[in-house]
Amino acid sequence: MARIAVVAGDGIGPEVVGQARKVIDAVLPGVEATEYDLGAARYHRTGEVLPESVLDELAGHDAILLGAVGDPTVPPGVLERGLLLKLRFAFDQYVNLRPSRLWSGVAGPLAAVKPGEVDLVVVREGTEGLYAGAGGSLHRDTPAEVATEESLNTRHGVERVIRDAFARARRRERRKVTLVHKTNVLTHAGSLWARAFAAVAAEFPDVTTEYQHVDAAAMFLVTNPSRYDVVVTDNLFGDILTDIAAAVTGGIGLAASGCINPEGRYPSMFEPVHGSAPDIAGRGVADPVAAVLSAALLLDQLGHADAAARVTAAVATELAGRTSGAPLRTEEVGDRLAGHAVA
Amino acid sequence: MARIAVVAGDGIGPEVVGQARKVIDAVLPGVEATEYDLGAARYHRTGEVLPESVLDELAGHDAILLGAVGDPTVPPGVLERGLLLKLRFAFDQYVNLRPSRLWSGVAGPLAAVKPGEVDLVVVREGTEGLYAGAGGSLHRDTPAEVATEESLNTRHGVERVIRDAFARARRRERRKVTLVHKTNVLTHAGSLWARAFAAVAAEFPDVTTEYQHVDAAAMFLVTNPSRYDVVVTDNLFGDILTDIAAAVTGGIGLAASGCINPEGRYPSMFEPVHGSAPDIAGRGVADPVAAVLSAALLLDQLGHADAAARVTAAVATELAGRTSGAPLRTEEVGDRLAGHAVA
Ligand SMILES: CC(C)[C@H](C(=O)O)[C@@H](O)C(=O)O
Ligand SMILES: CC(C)[C@H](C(=O)O)[C@@H](O)C(=O)O
Repeated sequence: MARIAVVAGDGIGPEVVGQARKVIDAVLPGVEATEYDLGAARYHRTGEVLPESVLDELAGHDAILLGAVGDPTVPPGVLERGLLLKLRFAFDQYVNLRPSRLWSGVAGPLAAVKPGEVDLVVVREGTEGLYAGAGGSLHRDTPAEVATEESLNTRHGVERVIRDAFARARRRERRKVTLVHKTNVLTHAGSLWARAFAAVAAEFPDVTTEYQHVDAAAMFLVTNPSRYDVVVTDNLFGDILTDIAAAVTGGIGLAASGCINPEGRYPSMFEPVHGSAPDIAGRGVADPVAAVLSAALLLDQLGHADAAARVTAAVATELAGRTSGAPLRTEEVGDRLAGHAVA
Repeated sequence: MARIAVVAGDGIGPEVVGQARKVIDAVLPGVEATEYDLGAARYHRTGEVLPESVLDELAGHDAILLGAVGDPTVPPGVLERGLLLKLRFAFDQYVNLRPSRLWSGVAGPLAAVKPGEVDLVVVREGTEGLYAGAGGSLHRDTPAEVATEESLNTRHGVERVIRDAFARARRRERRKVTLVHKTNVLTHAGSLWARAFAAVAAEFPDVTTEYQHVDAAAMFLVTNPSRYDVVVTDNLFGDILTDIAAAVTGGIGLAASGCINPEGRYPSMFEPVHGSAPDIAGRGVADPVAAVLSAALLLDQLGHADAAARVTAAVATELAGRTSGAPLRTEEVGDRLAGHAVA
């Protein structure tokens, strides 16, 4: 039976992760879960972000379920670089999978787009680009200060995530992959991405392809999100585009995410796109749907496609039945989702 | 009297620039305009992108009015790096000014946002960041290929554009500046931007400030664009955010842009955000509004605030009177705008 590590984290993290576990237990009884205390609270208490021993223990699990980490009291970068990105890089989670659907029952912000009309997935590169941490500065705090950030891109890293995107497209109905980059300005990295894309596309003659600059893609996600099926892009562009995709499909409250090591050499990690939302933490009003959808991605990755599909269907039922404006109780939503999933 | 250089460019460029000149002539008779043939057509004919002699001549003008350059037949980067970015960098146009308003009469894509409710301006840095062209690659076309792009940020470059943003905010009603960056991942550049922002903010105690990560800002531009007044950000983030802002206010067909050297040591350059749109070129159906609004920014920069205001008011009248779906004739729109502007 699957062994998962649970990092509930800060703010609303524990509340929403509790519901995700409830739903996992309902559809796949017997999953062994071990909790790990990481995040802002631990950092403040002990000064530790991610001890090596914990990293080693996490490596021994089949997957990681993460709630949310972070708090305004922690300096920017500490938990991001020291925990989230550390895990993505250490566990070679090069596929950052972010599906966006406009579900029935959800009122998206776009007047012309109806539920059912958006169903896309962004395959964001997760281990390279500007996230490599290859930057520095000189003459700090003087008028002569200079600061750099370097985007590092390898054929190895680019090609494997593009191949993953094509493989996913082949399993979908429209079989279309859009490469998003900025080849007209970032000519070196852009050229590498474009050539790797063309090479992989040749292996998938049954998949349609297109290319868009990131600024155009950001625009089309607003004016015509239905045009996308699978989008593959670099780490930073993916960060931005997935938040736009979440916004046009009802907000990050519903957005799930998987940081995946497709070969399974290391554990993959699943987390809602939303943060720890300290303003509403502890009140039992956070929407657990994004965490539950992330749990569905986890189940799918571990080979339980059937259980995953039941969770996704439960979310569809839940959202279709929501009355807008009605108060939302985290626990109750979790109970309903678990109920739908086994019905 | 002002001397402007006109680069009509490719595709719909000449059509829309023609209307912009018509409107300028109407509100400020006697402007001396010299045409320069640059863009994809010249590149194909002569192999030249921007001869030094032309660059020197352009430098002698008070401002540059640009239509659009580019064509799918030109390899990515040639005209962008060789012409557009070359001009921005050579003429130290460090303020890339991009206002977005949801005009009366324009149906934006957002169900909940009404005309009049969005009125923001993005002050995008124009001479640094990932646009510096500081990248390279090794082992090209082998499995060992690596490609880099470097973001270069100086205190000098960052501080001056932030100061410009605060000065503009002070002249607006809400007096608010939002800094957008990604300080939690791009920690070196992010820290430089954040510290420069705090230092400049101290000079403007009457201006409200806030900070947002670029992914959050991309989302809020869709879910709540009304919250923004002046947004200041780096070159690449500004490229993406301004296309989102254009999308939520009716599309890049209406979006104006100025590449400004505020000190006036070099000519500033004004251009619609849209491209050359080869698919509709020559048919007289391109909307000249973005070019005409860019002309208004030009007039304002040259000290003709009054003429600029008349052009902007003419656009407001034109858009308020549009019947959605009615066919649009470039020439007729230009005539009407010129008429409104002098009425
Ligand atoms: C918290 C931050 C490091 C992270 C990212 O930039 O990847 C977040 O925005 C996300 O999208 O998962
Ligand atoms: C054409 C391209 C170089 C340019 C940019 O990236 O700045 C364009 O997208 C813009 O926004 O003006």
